[in-house]
Amino acid sequence: MRRAFCLFLTFISLGGTCWSSNPRISFEKYVEARWDLLTSEDRIYLGHDLTLTQDEKDFDKILMKYKDHEINEGFLAPGNFTGARHFFHVLDRINSSKVFQLIRKMPKGGVLHAHDTALLSTDCLMKFLEWENLFMCDKNDGSAINFWFAKAADAIKKPCEGSAWQKFDKSNIRRLREAFTLYTQSPDTKYTDIQVVWREFLNKFFAIEGLVGYVEVWKEYFMRTLIEFQEDGVQYLEFRGLLPPVYDLDGNFLSKIEIAEAYNKVLQEFLKANPSFIGAKFIYAPLRLVPAAEIANYRETFVKLKQKLPNFIAGFDLVGPEDTNFPLKTFVEELSKFPADTNFFFHAGETNWNGIDVDENLVDAILLGTKRIGHGYAIVKHPKLLAEVKKRGIAIEICPISNQVLKLVADHRNHPAAILFSDDYPVVVSSDDPSLWQATPLSHDFYVAFMGIASANANLRFLKKLALNSLRFSAMNDKEMKVALEKWAEKWHSFVREAIKEHKSQ
Amino acid sequence: MRRAFCLFLTFISLGGTCWSSNPRISFEKYVEARWDLLTSEDRIYLGHDLTLTQDEKDFDKILMKYKDHEINEGFLAPGNFTGARHFFHVLDRINSSKVFQLIRKMPKGGVLHAHDTALLSTDCLMKFLEWENLFMCDKNDGSAINFWFAKAADAIKKPCEGSAWQKFDKSNIRRLREAFTLYTQSPDTKYTDIQVVWREFLNKFFAIEGLVGYVEVWKEYFMRTLIEFQEDGVQYLEFRGLLPPVYDLDGNFLSKIEIAEAYNKVLQEFLKANPSFIGAKFIYAPLRLVPAAEIANYRETFVKLKQKLPNFIAGFDLVGPEDTNFPLKTFVEELSKFPADTNFFFHAGETNWNGIDVDENLVDAILLGTKRIGHGYAIVKHPKLLAEVKKRGIAIEICPISNQVLKLVADHRNHPAAILFSDDYPVVVSSDDPSLWQATPLSHDFYVAFMGIASANANLRFLKKLALNSLRFSAMNDKEMKVALEKWAEKWHSFVREAIKEHKSQ
Repeated sequence: MRRAFCLFLTFISLGGTCWSSNPRISFEKYVEARWDLLTSEDRIYLGHDLTLTQDEKDFDKILMKYKDHEINEGFLAPGNFTGARHFFHVLDRINSSKVFQLIRKMPKGGVLHAHDTALLSTDCLMKFLEWENLFMCDKNDGSAINFWFAKAADAIKKPCEGSAWQKFDKSNIRRLREAFTLYTQSPDTKYTDIQVVWREFLNKFFAIEGLVGYVEVWKEYFMRTLIEFQEDGVQYLEFRGLLPPVYDLDGNFLSKIEIAEAYNKVLQEFLKANPSFIGAKFIYAPLRLVPAAEIANYRETFVKLKQKLPNFIAGFDLVGPEDTNFPLKTFVEELSKFPADTNFFFHAGETNWNGIDVDENLVDAILLGTKRIGHGYAIVKHPKLLAEVKKRGIAIEICPISNQVLKLVADHRNHPAAILFSDDYPVVVSSDDPSLWQATPLSHDFYVAFMGIASANANLRFLKKLALNSLRFSAMNDKEMKVALEKWAEKWHSFVREAIKEHKSQ
Repeated sequence: MRRAFCLFLTFISLGGTCWSSNPRISFEKYVEARWDLLTSEDRIYLGHDLTLTQDEKDFDKILMKYKDHEINEGFLAPGNFTGARHFFHVLDRINSSKVFQLIRKMPKGGVLHAHDTALLSTDCLMKFLEWENLFMCDKNDGSAINFWFAKAADAIKKPCEGSAWQKFDKSNIRRLREAFTLYTQSPDTKYTDIQVVWREFLNKFFAIEGLVGYVEVWKEYFMRTLIEFQEDGVQYLEFRGLLPPVYDLDGNFLSKIEIAEAYNKVLQEFLKANPSFIGAKFIYAPLRLVPAAEIANYRETFVKLKQKLPNFIAGFDLVGPEDTNFPLKTFVEELSKFPADTNFFFHAGETNWNGIDVDENLVDAILLGTKRIGHGYAIVKHPKLLAEVKKRGIAIEICPISNQVLKLVADHRNHPAAILFSDDYPVVVSSDDPSLWQATPLSHDFYVAFMGIASANANLRFLKKLALNSLRFSAMNDKEMKVALEKWAEKWHSFVREAIKEHKSQ
């Protein structure tokens, strides 16, 4: 879009010479000053420090042709612009966008902010409804449906309050889809405020929890997730999880260590078959709606997990609606007792509020030494905290579609990440709960960041930087990182070459 | 809301002493660091440089009690929070808010961004429909209704295309209200995108233009405006105007100089009767949808106006939808030929777009030496431009309700001014076209800025600073400014005393 500026230069240099009447600034100086000011912003924009190879420059031309075209169309009909509308309204159009199709194939690095049971596509998740030994608890009162696998109803350890566990009738499958997704054609009327959408959100989680808690499903769920992530151009995953109840058909429960080990076993199996995949790590992230004393139990579990699976366990976080759950300050003392080498990855500032406990979570996250901040939506209203995250290299995990579905922002062009991008703050883009909104593991969030949030001038350097940041700000150690960058670079360069070739053949 | 923090201090100092396991930071250091970080932001927040008198502190307690209460209620039911909802949905509730009622009476200084024919309340505007000699042109095709005063239809110089001028039937008055206002109970479904609302917006302007263009109405309109502004606690007005056609009953038109002189005459009359009023100045702001050569004619008019009414004419601007009209860069050469002492007050960056001509208007406004920037909504995405406006003391004219009605932002908590407030950028809050959205001249925008955009911790210092900024960043010269500050301070201190007294008597 900077093209227009070049046209302008031609225009005013063809203009008159009678500039002398304005003592403010001479004509030549004006042109120079304008150029300097505009390019001074390019020189600090996210990705400014990358130099593209000739191949990358060629590909960038293709990419930016499509981006310019979409933005021009959006400019003419802003009511249709995908970057400005609710994701649910434009999902189909995004899927048919040329920019999206290129991003889909692009090696995007890692997903650093996503939650255990919201990773797998709904289509794939619903396949588990076809498995044998499934029971359902449906109270028909608008609350969450529950599922449980068991040899018989009396082996189910979870009560079905107000109703009874019934053998699942497979003819129900198709109409159950909405139990697992927030997707709707009318998000504005269905989700009238943030509390309504959070309530629905938690209902979906409850519905999924029992279904995927059956140990065989649990393993298959994670395997399918890794497959889908890889297919989406994701080579690395750092995911948060509760380690919720995982059980067998007789109603025996796995320990938290066993649950994590099950993850790791699937991961190793996947890695063996897919050597270009980088890996996955787990952030233990139990619920924050607990008394402070409960943190001691979390800590004990975390320490055991870390001892047992030192490479797999990345760190610790707390989850749950920040607005209505306890603020981090409630837990400062208990959190300070975690081993000194614990990596914290706190959710903080996932809110529109300003100057209350919820955005002050950002202060505690930073002071507790968090490595990254989950969401950090409110941080742009806090100049001193912005300076701290830059100084300390704390990456903000931006989840654009999540923020929109959870009603923090309507038009992505107002997303605060635009400000973070404009001055090269440490950021990664992630997907949070892609399953819940029918998004791909990472491509849709990259698309929204690129088209809706970033400047029209942000080009391939921006996307490459996002990919590199997603590895750089991960919990990998130096050795792992070296391998990761090599694996990513190989995919990246072959993607770029392939994309140019494909474009030429068209 | 910082109260909660004090409770927290108590809480953790009552806590255990076993902090030593965390080598990151000691318990005492944590508390200190937390306090330092939080207060370091208070020390740069808009208003930080003001010290409140004892009276002001007493009043602040009253004000903040009401503010805290409203925010706490909003926190519990965010779907009802006035700062988060569309202004049209919450207008009645704002009017009954205690915070609003205090702000309404508060001497708020000046309105520095408002447009000629969108100043007067719709109720008052509609009174002109009762005057004699009114004709109406209604094409019944959904386009704008037009009005004209004349002795007879053949004295009307404006064509009524596709229909004919008809003597106005006064029984129609009540159902004509919506010809003059964008107000509706269902803004989301009626104004589906920015272009729809702009089209409606311009329709209202056209409907008003002929009605107020009759010279007797013109004068009365301005007189009533000054009365309403004064009643709203506004003591100064710097308004933009097109100097549109002003005519008499015989169809004779006033010259632009005569129109401005009519304004000034009304102003002098008003000032004589209202010595506590500070004054008004006019920014000549014709349409930007013109060929560059037309700027030469604008310049000629401006120079004549400035010669004739040097104290009344404040400066120059261009108006019209920025997205779809020509960018400032088109006019750089012609604008540079304005006299060197011309004050520019350019609209720039009233947009959600990023990295295209519209937000680049900010660059040209700054380089052309603008004294203030109208809207500047997009500036927070431009770190180098932010640095420039701070260095050069260019005030950003923030018009919160306008930005919402024109679909730039849905939830005011996402308004970029939150960022400008957080680091004491030069800003003023204004109302743009209060008549179009049934807002008071300034109180509603102050309310939204205070409750919806600013931090929950922003208190009386913030509001006082907004009032002071509205004088400081005006086009008044030093002598005028001195008088202005005195007139404002007198009103301010008596307001504070009165408010305390009233509160005590309740």
